[in-house]
Amino acid sequence: MLEFYYAPHTCSLATHIVLEETGASYRPTRIDFTTAQQKSAAYEKINPKARVPALATTQGVLTETPAMLVYVAQLHPEAALAPIDDPFRFAQVQAFNSFLCSTLHVAHAHRMRGYRWADDEAAIASMQRKVPQSVAANFELVEKHMFKGPWVMGETYTICDPYLFTLAQWMEADGVDPAQFPMLAGHRSRMNARAAVVEAIRQELA
Amino acid sequence: MLEFYYAPHTCSLATHIVLEETGASYRPTRIDFTTAQQKSAAYEKINPKARVPALATTQGVLTETPAMLVYVAQLHPEAALAPIDDPFRFAQVQAFNSFLCSTLHVAHAHRMRGYRWADDEAAIASMQRKVPQSVAANFELVEKHMFKGPWVMGETYTICDPYLFTLAQWMEADGVDPAQFPMLAGHRSRMNARAAVVEAIRQELA
Repeated sequence: MLEFYYAPHTCSLATHIVLEETGASYRPTRIDFTTAQQKSAAYEKINPKARVPALATTQGVLTETPAMLVYVAQLHPEAALAPIDDPFRFAQVQAFNSFLCSTLHVAHAHRMRGYRWADDEAAIASMQRKVPQSVAANFELVEKHMFKGPWVMGETYTICDPYLFTLAQWMEADGVDPAQFPMLAGHRSRMNARAAVVEAIRQELA
Repeated sequence: MLEFYYAPHTCSLATHIVLEETGASYRPTRIDFTTAQQKSAAYEKINPKARVPALATTQGVLTETPAMLVYVAQLHPEAALAPIDDPFRFAQVQAFNSFLCSTLHVAHAHRMRGYRWADDEAAIASMQRKVPQSVAANFELVEKHMFKGPWVMGETYTICDPYLFTLAQWMEADGVDPAQFPMLAGHRSRMNARAAVVEAIRQELA
């Protein structure tokens, strides 16, 4: 049994969807960001980075979305969510998810988490002003150069899809018009129709 | 034959070292940042993200350090640089590299690349002031909670080691005193003694 630590409206939704897609045996545990539970001593014993998601396994705790997505996919090869045995295709999957975590999510984070990179309010406000532009530029790269359709990697649904879907959900709040990105809008519709997506979101918002 | 696009003093060194460690057949091609070659039309055809590293293979171009490190390791299983067949240990490797690309490298990038996240000079200067603190906090997490020793993952040298070594080389320029992190200082010495590291650095600085 895996213990999955998540918080609503965070990137943990990506792993949550993949847990549902694979039929993994897991117990979801919500971390309450409104009371800063992620910074509690109890949670910092689980994840010293004081963030979600985290996945407690019988071998230890795992963190970081790209790593957890591959881990869950690898535990459930029958779901065929990551082409681990094909080095080039697997690298494409990994490159996509790495871009999301290191570039797209980071651009977004400058709206709510600017305090990570500056102390004064004027600088934090300046970062917030640039978010619509920097997030849109990243989605443009995805739409024009990375997204193959109907899924991220083409005909095959992979661990890239829940991750893209999760971050794309933040577009409107980031001041980015989804109508600019018709391929990504179609992707969102297809994702919203999947039972695993509906169930993961239901659990998170319950 | 792989074509490897790199620039000195960037994170491409991590992949460069792994190419050397594995004895991969590759041709290193330097991208000249001083003339903004990474933004040239010719290079943007190779990597529309206008960054290094990139790896042109017979199947297409790969980007993103964590993806490329696994790819090169997977092409050379005899080098045993990534425990791909052990889902938990592989996830630990991936989580470490994901933390480096999404958090540690990003903290560092606020010193030289603040323009990615704000337009005004005061905000960019404010970001630069916080770099010593945010980068040190990330290395503290590595030293206290992630680094096992003598290598990142313990007794076995993996793709995590060249990546950590590459980012740790920027510590002094980021205003972080390496003496705070004795385990990482020992790691740097061990890395500097490896033939693959010496050769990759020699090529990059030649």
